[in-house]
Amino acid sequence: MVRIPILRMGDCLLVTIQVDMQDQTAMALQEDLSDRIAATGARGVLIDISALEIVDSFVGRMLASISGIARILDATTVVVGMQPAVAITLVELGLSLEGVRTALNVELGMELLRRARLEGSLGR
Amino acid sequence: MVRIPILRMGDCLLVTIQVDMQDQTAMALQEDLSDRIAATGARGVLIDISALEIVDSFVGRMLASISGIARILDATTVVVGMQPAVAITLVELGLSLEGVRTALNVELGMELLRRARLEGSLGR
Repeated sequence: MVRIPILRMGDCLLVTIQVDMQDQTAMALQEDLSDRIAATGARGVLIDISALEIVDSFVGRMLASISGIARILDATTVVVGMQPAVAITLVELGLSLEGVRTALNVELGMELLRRARLEGSLGR
Repeated sequence: MVRIPILRMGDCLLVTIQVDMQDQTAMALQEDLSDRIAATGARGVLIDISALEIVDSFVGRMLASISGIARILDATTVVVGMQPAVAITLVELGLSLEGVRTALNVELGMELLRRARLEGSLGR
């Protein structure tokens, strides 16, 4: 089974999805990511999907689910690099990725996380 | 054919290798990476191979070749995340990855790039 590597950068974790997600890969990623968030105290998770040409309902649910788990562990998830054609298809399929934040690329995603954290700390 | 995504972070490019490299994938990565270094003016390239359980002479040559191309384009390459077992096998095979810089993980690799740049700018 393919295990997707999770890279740590400061207080963020970065995951680049390059392979078609199967059930097992997705489950392993969820587990690994939860463990790493807990172990490192990461506050942000960036998931790069620029290599994906198709995002079906399975991947959509996985992204939403990872985002939900991370939120409970006090980390914000940003999905980055979605191809425009993928966004079009998602909307046509009625998959709106609710609760999932997005950014055009890793840099903008990091900026979003930084701002979210600032606002969070000010708001509390 | 699988195209490996190249992520930009500041003046670094990050590549996570997750799939077994075939000739075509390796050639495409070399081309894409050279184009991106030229287009972005990146000064550093981080190649994460933590997902690879085997690094054979083909991958070893590819890493050395990418490192050489990047150097000509004035960028430093750091290979990060190599599994200890891979390092052992490489040495046993007599592949010393000459000319390729390495670091334990992405964070240390970035630190290495930052220091290399400082020294470079002081030394000139």
